[in-house]
Amino acid sequence: MTLQQLFGIQLPIIQAPMAGVQDHRLAVAVSNAGGLGSLPAAMLSLEALRTELTALQAQTDQPFNVNFFCHCPPVPDAEREAKWRAALAPFYAELDLDPAQIPIGPGRAPFSAEAAELLAEFRPAVLSFHFGLPAPELLAQVRSWGSKVIASATTVAEALWLEAQGVDAIIAQGLEAGGHRGHFLSMDLTEQAGLFALLPRIVQAVKVPVIAAGGIADAQGVAAAMALGAAGVQVGSAYLLCPEATTSAIHRAALQSSGSGHTALTTVFSGRPARGIVNRVMRELGPLTAPTPEFPLATSAIAPLRAKAESQGSGDFSPLWCGQNASGCKAVGAGQLTLELAGGL
Amino acid sequence: MTLQQLFGIQLPIIQAPMAGVQDHRLAVAVSNAGGLGSLPAAMLSLEALRTELTALQAQTDQPFNVNFFCHCPPVPDAEREAKWRAALAPFYAELDLDPAQIPIGPGRAPFSAEAAELLAEFRPAVLSFHFGLPAPELLAQVRSWGSKVIASATTVAEALWLEAQGVDAIIAQGLEAGGHRGHFLSMDLTEQAGLFALLPRIVQAVKVPVIAAGGIADAQGVAAAMALGAAGVQVGSAYLLCPEATTSAIHRAALQSSGSGHTALTTVFSGRPARGIVNRVMRELGPLTAPTPEFPLATSAIAPLRAKAESQGSGDFSPLWCGQNASGCKAVGAGQLTLELAGGL
Repeated sequence: MTLQQLFGIQLPIIQAPMAGVQDHRLAVAVSNAGGLGSLPAAMLSLEALRTELTALQAQTDQPFNVNFFCHCPPVPDAEREAKWRAALAPFYAELDLDPAQIPIGPGRAPFSAEAAELLAEFRPAVLSFHFGLPAPELLAQVRSWGSKVIASATTVAEALWLEAQGVDAIIAQGLEAGGHRGHFLSMDLTEQAGLFALLPRIVQAVKVPVIAAGGIADAQGVAAAMALGAAGVQVGSAYLLCPEATTSAIHRAALQSSGSGHTALTTVFSGRPARGIVNRVMRELGPLTAPTPEFPLATSAIAPLRAKAESQGSGDFSPLWCGQNASGCKAVGAGQLTLELAGGL
Repeated sequence: MTLQQLFGIQLPIIQAPMAGVQDHRLAVAVSNAGGLGSLPAAMLSLEALRTELTALQAQTDQPFNVNFFCHCPPVPDAEREAKWRAALAPFYAELDLDPAQIPIGPGRAPFSAEAAELLAEFRPAVLSFHFGLPAPELLAQVRSWGSKVIASATTVAEALWLEAQGVDAIIAQGLEAGGHRGHFLSMDLTEQAGLFALLPRIVQAVKVPVIAAGGIADAQGVAAAMALGAAGVQVGSAYLLCPEATTSAIHRAALQSSGSGHTALTTVFSGRPARGIVNRVMRELGPLTAPTPEFPLATSAIAPLRAKAESQGSGDFSPLWCGQNASGCKAVGAGQLTLELAGGL
């Protein structure tokens, strides 16, 4: 079965869900163009999720995808939190922020029974998960109303695990991809492989369709992924300059600068490795060696620095998410970009 | 101009030069099949180089490539050497080796005027360089007798630098590649990108033909690289099981084991990051954090451990070079493998 048949779409192009830089509008534009638009739900309250899903359903009658994170909520650790704030203290002083005024709290919630209950009213065609899958009973529930389930694999072992849980397709997330890496069986980053190696190995290992992600920026990239056995692609960074995305002006400027050629995985923004354009806080704290608390608890202490710096026009403390290939970023409508990506098929 | 026209070959398939696991025989088989066979010269004395070139020229009338390293010879540092030996001390004790009996000395010499003089007698069709290029006068000399010059780039900046020096083609070495990474303008490993991102960015940046390397294991991989704009490919790991390679039995067994799915960049074998299958010494010393002396000086202190362990049938201290995609490794003749790689063109 092709990905088009599986999801009921026209083009095997999935717009990657990108929490923090898009809402329903980007998803609407992509779904209406024949691709699969995605709504990132990881940073939405239940109320905001309802608002977004209502808007999405009102503006397209085409299939769409809703994405959730599936991390284990961490146990807060006062000592780690204190170390993290100590590491950030010079920046608080520089930006004239009072550390005592900075709240503690998680920035992202994993998929929950409450979210599933809400989704039951909307029954999205596709649900995608990052960092593994929800608990089996929750997974059975979302599948009971006909939603197709897909999830990210960053290793062959993860792909086999996901297939055993019954997912309908697997996203092979190459090391090139921007944003959070989806690894969940092993935290050893040396196991993360480039798409040229990961994709064919996963295609050989599983029977379900495989969706290629990471570094795919244009029609040539789509054709290359298909040549390696992908049933479709998931593209993120290329959509970041679209008018339908909510990407900040600072983030857009970074994507269009020569600096977009140098990204790195970093834990400084959330506590988990995610790829963004190298900026001051990544450089000065060390992208992967900063003493952060567990995901997603790192976010709260760095958030005020980001807000203050951004108010002064600086992206020094912002997560400038971007994959290793920003060459496809274009300030064109997301529908047009979707058609262009599919142009070589 | 196609790569075939540039080099006078039939198939745009370059067998990657792999020091330590091959001699002229692998190159002969590939060149006679219509690809470009390569002789790695980095670990050869001038005498051995002459012997190999003589054999190569006697056994093929087709074009071949000779590869050299272009690192700056390091200044030995007694303190770093002592630290390195201290880190290895528990292993010396375990394997009953006397540290006082272990000589100090470089394992690999950079391209030299003496090597150029010797090459003048053989005038190989192609010379490839890793870690940059020889000094301009040496480069002019090798070009004066008609050899085409190619070199590895791991970033867009390196590709632009190589093009400015007048190379005839550029090898885009994706992060997936096995063996030594070729970076030379920056030692920051976060700048190293997967082939899906690196290849199209280099193709867009330069006018000379671009050769894709890293993670390409079969005809589908070759087709994917061509879709991304490559003029040809350089394939290494896939050739390691060929009977014409001198790959050790221990190395062959590792390549055929499930362990080949987990490689990492490591400095423990030479002092420079190189990708191999994760083994005991990489795990126990930390693949990139071991206190090694500068490249290539790390080799001499670990060499006796390797020799002793291998004599006992163990690869615990061996460089098991391999890229991130060992799925194409096959125990078939290198000529047949070359034809299979080109099968989709």
